[in-house]
Amino acid sequence: MDTLTAIKQRYSHKGQFSLEPVPLADLEVIAQAGIDAPSGGNLQTVQLVILHKREMIEAITAVAPAWGVLESAPAAIAVLTNSSLPQGEWNFEKEDYSAAVQNMLLAATATGYVSLWLDSPYFAEDKQKAACKVLGAPESYHLWAVLPIGKPGQEVGRREKQPFEKRVSYGTVGNKKA
Amino acid sequence: MDTLTAIKQRYSHKGQFSLEPVPLADLEVIAQAGIDAPSGGNLQTVQLVILHKREMIEAITAVAPAWGVLESAPAAIAVLTNSSLPQGEWNFEKEDYSAAVQNMLLAATATGYVSLWLDSPYFAEDKQKAACKVLGAPESYHLWAVLPIGKPGQEVGRREKQPFEKRVSYGTVGNKKA
Repeated sequence: MDTLTAIKQRYSHKGQFSLEPVPLADLEVIAQAGIDAPSGGNLQTVQLVILHKREMIEAITAVAPAWGVLESAPAAIAVLTNSSLPQGEWNFEKEDYSAAVQNMLLAATATGYVSLWLDSPYFAEDKQKAACKVLGAPESYHLWAVLPIGKPGQEVGRREKQPFEKRVSYGTVGNKKA
Repeated sequence: MDTLTAIKQRYSHKGQFSLEPVPLADLEVIAQAGIDAPSGGNLQTVQLVILHKREMIEAITAVAPAWGVLESAPAAIAVLTNSSLPQGEWNFEKEDYSAAVQNMLLAATATGYVSLWLDSPYFAEDKQKAACKVLGAPESYHLWAVLPIGKPGQEVGRREKQPFEKRVSYGTVGNKKA
């Protein structure tokens, strides 16, 4: 799928997934897109865990429920960073993981799947800890998001976006095209 | 260009740009890709400023030099967030801007340009302030990055990435494919 088409078609699938399984090879293509993303200082802090079996999904949603969305997905990719890498003056873990997630959302769209940047189930300290334990993540790791991946089981709406002219200016903030 | 190809071909162009101008329409396609990115709570905190004239590039590099890289570019897009939007319990500005940047880097690649996630010139408080002033940004805005956009004026190397098996596991962190 053309890049600009994938960028336009990507949306947050906050609904049920179909039970149709996702071939492991497709999940690996999506994960490869994730690690192809840039990282601050090329530190490559992002670590991905492919959850390709239903029992893996069940284990993580058992400790950190996700509104039935992840619960219904046939597969997922967990997105962590290794915070123990020497970071220098600035820490880029948020940028690193976000760029990796965006690449994966686009790669999923391009290969015919839908996904979701699912993060809030892992914000609370106890959920973060429990989910990391299920994923066998070392103490120094942080779980940022889990991306459910599959075919849509139901249609969901997309939230409206502001028009171009409200978000893009020319030369200075708020300046319209001459 | 195919999505997976763009993801693979994107690289950080830390070198000179050619002086060949970038049509404004192409910059607008790239900016549209930026605002097509998802945002936390759909708050759409990201604001983009298209710098399509050489004097705009010169003004910002005069106050925040960028190793001659941005200085050589025929065009750029500045990436800010509006921090005054009500953020709720969590602040997603870093995620929002990072997803927008990654979309734009891919859109630039797909439309035949090279770019760079240029952020460190704007980290120091005085540079941040001076650059924001040049961009006419309100007090509540933060400048995260400026993406130079153009054709490469010289070839530059790419930094090596770790192999797939060092960054992707199955089921649990560090677990190899069965």
